[in-house]
Amino acid sequence: MNPSVLRTASRHLRAANRLNRTSAASRSAPIRGYKTAFNWEDPLVASELFTEEELAIQDTAKRYCQEQLQPRILEAYRNENYDRQILNEMGELGLLGANIKGYGCAGASTVASGLITKEVERVDSGYRSGMSVQSSLAMTAIHDFGTQELKDRLLPELARGKLAGCFGLTEPNHGSDPGSMETVAREHPTKKGYYLLSGTKTWITNSPLSDLFVVWAKLDGKIRGFAVERSQCPEGTLTTPAIKNKTALRASITGMIQMDDCPVPAENMFPDVTGLVGPFTCLNSARLGIAFGAMGALEDCLDRARTYALERKQFGSPLAKFQLIQKKLVDAATDAAYGTLAATQVARLKDAGKSCPEMISMVKRQNCDRALVNARILQEVLGGNAASDEYHIARHVANLFVVQTYEGQSDIHSLILGRAITGLQAFVPK
Amino acid sequence: MNPSVLRTASRHLRAANRLNRTSAASRSAPIRGYKTAFNWEDPLVASELFTEEELAIQDTAKRYCQEQLQPRILEAYRNENYDRQILNEMGELGLLGANIKGYGCAGASTVASGLITKEVERVDSGYRSGMSVQSSLAMTAIHDFGTQELKDRLLPELARGKLAGCFGLTEPNHGSDPGSMETVAREHPTKKGYYLLSGTKTWITNSPLSDLFVVWAKLDGKIRGFAVERSQCPEGTLTTPAIKNKTALRASITGMIQMDDCPVPAENMFPDVTGLVGPFTCLNSARLGIAFGAMGALEDCLDRARTYALERKQFGSPLAKFQLIQKKLVDAATDAAYGTLAATQVARLKDAGKSCPEMISMVKRQNCDRALVNARILQEVLGGNAASDEYHIARHVANLFVVQTYEGQSDIHSLILGRAITGLQAFVPK
Amino acid sequence: MNPSVLRTASRHLRAANRLNRTSAASRSAPIRGYKTAFNWEDPLVASELFTEEELAIQDTAKRYCQEQLQPRILEAYRNENYDRQILNEMGELGLLGANIKGYGCAGASTVASGLITKEVERVDSGYRSGMSVQSSLAMTAIHDFGTQELKDRLLPELARGKLAGCFGLTEPNHGSDPGSMETVAREHPTKKGYYLLSGTKTWITNSPLSDLFVVWAKLDGKIRGFAVERSQCPEGTLTTPAIKNKTALRASITGMIQMDDCPVPAENMFPDVTGLVGPFTCLNSARLGIAFGAMGALEDCLDRARTYALERKQFGSPLAKFQLIQKKLVDAATDAAYGTLAATQVARLKDAGKSCPEMISMVKRQNCDRALVNARILQEVLGGNAASDEYHIARHVANLFVVQTYEGQSDIHSLILGRAITGLQAFVPK
Amino acid sequence: MNPSVLRTASRHLRAANRLNRTSAASRSAPIRGYKTAFNWEDPLVASELFTEEELAIQDTAKRYCQEQLQPRILEAYRNENYDRQILNEMGELGLLGANIKGYGCAGASTVASGLITKEVERVDSGYRSGMSVQSSLAMTAIHDFGTQELKDRLLPELARGKLAGCFGLTEPNHGSDPGSMETVAREHPTKKGYYLLSGTKTWITNSPLSDLFVVWAKLDGKIRGFAVERSQCPEGTLTTPAIKNKTALRASITGMIQMDDCPVPAENMFPDVTGLVGPFTCLNSARLGIAFGAMGALEDCLDRARTYALERKQFGSPLAKFQLIQKKLVDAATDAAYGTLAATQVARLKDAGKSCPEMISMVKRQNCDRALVNARILQEVLGGNAASDEYHIARHVANLFVVQTYEGQSDIHSLILGRAITGLQAFVPK
Repeated sequence: MNPSVLRTASRHLRAANRLNRTSAASRSAPIRGYKTAFNWEDPLVASELFTEEELAIQDTAKRYCQEQLQPRILEAYRNENYDRQILNEMGELGLLGANIKGYGCAGASTVASGLITKEVERVDSGYRSGMSVQSSLAMTAIHDFGTQELKDRLLPELARGKLAGCFGLTEPNHGSDPGSMETVAREHPTKKGYYLLSGTKTWITNSPLSDLFVVWAKLDGKIRGFAVERSQCPEGTLTTPAIKNKTALRASITGMIQMDDCPVPAENMFPDVTGLVGPFTCLNSARLGIAFGAMGALEDCLDRARTYALERKQFGSPLAKFQLIQKKLVDAATDAAYGTLAATQVARLKDAGKSCPEMISMVKRQNCDRALVNARILQEVLGGNAASDEYHIARHVANLFVVQTYEGQSDIHSLILGRAITGLQAFVPK
Repeated sequence: MNPSVLRTASRHLRAANRLNRTSAASRSAPIRGYKTAFNWEDPLVASELFTEEELAIQDTAKRYCQEQLQPRILEAYRNENYDRQILNEMGELGLLGANIKGYGCAGASTVASGLITKEVERVDSGYRSGMSVQSSLAMTAIHDFGTQELKDRLLPELARGKLAGCFGLTEPNHGSDPGSMETVAREHPTKKGYYLLSGTKTWITNSPLSDLFVVWAKLDGKIRGFAVERSQCPEGTLTTPAIKNKTALRASITGMIQMDDCPVPAENMFPDVTGLVGPFTCLNSARLGIAFGAMGALEDCLDRARTYALERKQFGSPLAKFQLIQKKLVDAATDAAYGTLAATQVARLKDAGKSCPEMISMVKRQNCDRALVNARILQEVLGGNAASDEYHIARHVANLFVVQTYEGQSDIHSLILGRAITGLQAFVPK
Repeated sequence: MNPSVLRTASRHLRAANRLNRTSAASRSAPIRGYKTAFNWEDPLVASELFTEEELAIQDTAKRYCQEQLQPRILEAYRNENYDRQILNEMGELGLLGANIKGYGCAGASTVASGLITKEVERVDSGYRSGMSVQSSLAMTAIHDFGTQELKDRLLPELARGKLAGCFGLTEPNHGSDPGSMETVAREHPTKKGYYLLSGTKTWITNSPLSDLFVVWAKLDGKIRGFAVERSQCPEGTLTTPAIKNKTALRASITGMIQMDDCPVPAENMFPDVTGLVGPFTCLNSARLGIAFGAMGALEDCLDRARTYALERKQFGSPLAKFQLIQKKLVDAATDAAYGTLAATQVARLKDAGKSCPEMISMVKRQNCDRALVNARILQEVLGGNAASDEYHIARHVANLFVVQTYEGQSDIHSLILGRAITGLQAFVPK
Repeated sequence: MNPSVLRTASRHLRAANRLNRTSAASRSAPIRGYKTAFNWEDPLVASELFTEEELAIQDTAKRYCQEQLQPRILEAYRNENYDRQILNEMGELGLLGANIKGYGCAGASTVASGLITKEVERVDSGYRSGMSVQSSLAMTAIHDFGTQELKDRLLPELARGKLAGCFGLTEPNHGSDPGSMETVAREHPTKKGYYLLSGTKTWITNSPLSDLFVVWAKLDGKIRGFAVERSQCPEGTLTTPAIKNKTALRASITGMIQMDDCPVPAENMFPDVTGLVGPFTCLNSARLGIAFGAMGALEDCLDRARTYALERKQFGSPLAKFQLIQKKLVDAATDAAYGTLAATQVARLKDAGKSCPEMISMVKRQNCDRALVNARILQEVLGGNAASDEYHIARHVANLFVVQTYEGQSDIHSLILGRAITGLQAFVPK
């Protein structure tokens, strides 16, 4: 692990006020005959599965998120206003590309990386999206597929948040089926050693403010990846209009990538990867992060609904004393606990070289589905006050719908898994 | 029925382009051996249950809503900007207080009134809320409980939308349990024939722009109703700040009613009704409207999801050809059809004097629950595009959550019905 | 309507102890200001939609079912022992083929017919299956497609229950897709005016005790219908082994129809109908009956769970006072009320010549789905006692699963409706 | 670990035909770029969390269950006929009380013990119930609370299946609320050193054939535990009638324990435990086993539904190629994988002394709920054939309902967890 991050983390570790594991409030008294008390914030003690280092990293992330991101979220979401500075802040703490070794990255485990995304998404899925795109999509693509020159030049800048990156796969007519993409690359007719990219990508997180664009395009019919650097694109060949009036993830910035004979040096093409393996490798990294992240958003909803239910009285009792309310809290706590265990298991398998993409489909699908279902139910606890954005759960609900949808809509993951279970594909109707 | 409304309606009725029942597109060819073809927009032919007059009124309302309201909704929702002019437009068409007889109201059936709310909510639940508050809450209160003088003076103005009305029951600390309200009335210590009202009502649709406030307050411990006229309130005794940054119903305007020794003439108190019977009578009228309205919002989601699924291709086929997509459409169509039948049945029973509040609880609860569940599922059909507000379903989803919550949260109606079914109350935990 | 049935019905009608509408127990006191009290057994007052005649027929059926069938059900189900005598009893009361005009049938409305099936299924879906096969499948087939000679000869005997009938469509390898049937008819090579039938039908209710078999077979590749009379079949050409050890519907008898060059006179072939229109016409009749019947089973579950919840005390209170219990009862009551309204609507449309098969798919699918879901939830109210068959709900649950599955599995109806809504078929994967 | 069991297990381990982990059929080919292929039988590779010893024990158990229990289940279930010999067989293999150290027990980990219950319940929940009662309830009670003399004398006989044990807590009027039990113990009025037990226990697995009864009764108002030995009870003081005509768990034997001044030696009373801590300790052991077991039943349903879907063709394709079918398989596989991880986590915590009862409530509740929900959905895959008991899923469905209900009904565990999360109890309505 990168020493500077470790140092920060350890310092926090030693600090008395460990935010998430020592709060007396989250534990009931142990039942007679048992040494251990139930901790509603971690009911199945997932923390036992994490190393001290991982816990320290989580604490660092949590502290940053609660102290620096949480106060900004309402205004950011209301105004669809993403603060570019956040990437720099995350970069300084070592949160970007955290599981990449070298290049100024923390070199932490996949679990640690997942815990970071969980803490960011506890605040907001949009903030987490901005980070995921930088880390799992842009940086992973460069790291896994780029030339050594690209890695040496770009990764440290991306890790520190000096450069912002994004990932251009989805097109207006091709969401769940990226293999049909229409964006093309062709050899530059006159300028040797260059390709020209043309086509449109949409729903691209970070695109309007990105410096680096990982773009997938068909070259002679084969999907290839390109690192497109905005600074090198002649005016008019690369435009990145923002998409406004979003119904969710309003604290992230989203846009299009419009390329019109945009020239890219040949050495910016990923040399060895062709087909969908390239983008899917990055997506799998992001998806595993989402499986952690969604649990963070769900836990925040649970925390807020529980607090509200304890404080709000109706018919002379706190709402928390109503059976129908308790059931909502219990269902959510259970799914959050299960989902965290499952994501952790896949992250461990990944670091051991024993994972496969279908496992990631399973935890991405299930954790997003359950986070969304439970967040919606927890929103009911707030009653009419749910309509005020200051109670936050409505924002998580809106966000989680999109989180369930992007990077593999739930049904698409069902069909990926269905194919793995049955050996038969059911994507294409007759 | 009020002749002017009838006239308008009949004209529309004769017009060739009946919007909702003759469109060829909504009918498949009949199956061999059957004269009737399936109409996905009205699968169980609820229209057979409506009179020609009711259908004509629905057409009038639908035309207005699609032509006048639909074009305004995106901007209104984005900016939380309710156009006060809408009440005047509705008033001109006879849509306000439509089932009141006399006082310039249309005197239509409860079914007709329900069909109007359905058409308005097909556009937006916020627009419907604004209308419901005017019609079912403010006007019904005046009509059922006010003195003849109040009726004669206020109803015609409310019916034409010249005056805007609202309904102050909910308080910051008392949502589901209005019997615990803290707002009080007391005799004016010096000015005879006046009461002084003090207290705060919140989440009041229309309050910031209302001229007339139906306010419920405790006088000597008994709940009484008052018609508070803004024009008569000395400065500082009545303030109505808007609540902004709402997570839904942003096309309606919502606020508080803050009363500080606000003087109200004794003749503005409802003379004969005490206790919760008064407000609950109005709420029951509104709730039945909501049971219709929610079906309108759901049908709009269905229409949009179906159109999208037919136009959007993935893996070489329209989405509509995928089994998982078809099931979503079918579930929604079924619940919309069932809910419309049930609401119609209760409306008919009401006009026949055979309804009771629990019936309304049943259809309010079920239709809101099912509208919300299905709208959420239909939103999935849109995939990533659901995140753009121009696809509208996300707005319905956000709205329907609040619609499910207000005027009796779903769980509260469960307990109302549970008490009716078992004879035992379960509202109050020990 | 057949006078004898009418007479019986009217007598019951006048009788003081109207079983289902006057029981004081099922009504709570009216809420202040309302004349009508909520009746948990008919929350949306579907009875208002029925004629006096229909109500009288329902009462007749209910009395018979509760007095004659209910006492037999436990032993019948335990031992998979269907009492053939039941058909005779039903025949005497006019319950068989009740909506056929003439031929000794009651000539009642489709609604009345539906109410009969509802009352029978209130006792047991297996008893209802035995009756439906006789009425909706065998008799409807003869009535709608048979020659006048067949009708005159067979219908009166079937109506009185002297002959037992069944319906052979499903084959071992062809359930949801009957168009692929393998049973064939060919002209008798030597005996003029005869066809030979060969093939196997399975899951045929009533087959082991049937006298008359409506069998669908391919003649020169076209599906044709035949009335096969057991008495005319030479030994060995028609065998009907029972299927034992069923997991549900154990009070009905189920078997196969094995035909090995079984000779059938040409005049027993239905002259004018070819293809799937024939069997589907009968199935649609049966399916509409099932939509009513499933509501009967659900209402019985509700009644039993409610009674148990009122009588059983835990933690010092009747279960009925628990919020989580009340919600289960309320959900079930709501779905039962909605389903009854919808089935009634389709039955009315059918009698008016305004129905189509997709409407029946909708109410069959939805009512079966909801009956099953709610019956399962109501079973939870019984706690451990659910494991005793004397509490009955477990039997309904097991039955309703099969009822949801036969005559169009829920998913198949989804695809039928999906095709009607979208115009695209999704039955056949690539 | 007991050497003899270990020896058996290791032998199996070395055997070539490892039943559950090496079957090529359950793995698809790895996706390009990944070494690991998805294994639908263990999608999240829970096996990585088990020691070689635990896997060996699972294999031993699985072999026995598939070879010895599976062939007996249909007849046992049909005829409600539990084969007492099974306890002896299980005893010989070391499966009884497997996580007890000493006394001839295997001394395996709690995870190993859970894997045994999973394999038994993969065949049938009734067989698992018979084993759980012996192991987790009777043996745990003796082991944790009995005198050394009782342990030395009874545990080895129970471990070998020579003695059959059961556990008497539930009473006819007290299911979810055992603290209200009516069974009493009093000092023998004449025979010193003896107590007299009177009262009735019901729904007691194994009672009709048990030799040893762990019975909980109130002595001077305090709950105490007694080891009642049938051989020592005078005739008429202890009767154990079987409960027949069960709707589920028919392969286990269930009955009552009726005690009428049944004399028990004072040394058979558990000396140090009073109150509900005693029975709840045993229940928690059993419940954790159930959390594993339910996953076994679910996996069997998945396996059978998948096989059926691959073999059964409709509309020209295997069912497994239908999207709606694939989704059912995927949902089930996901919940089985998640549930196994969660149960394993709690078992590990238990062995580390870090568990608490609420954790067990969580995994018992969730795993039972999800097993039941998914088993029901998988049953739909079978279509009409689900009605034949030879397809097995209907049996699992019926069993799992009871498994969800006993040892803490799902709602009760919700309230246990709700109390732990909120600090407020909601068991007792006003």
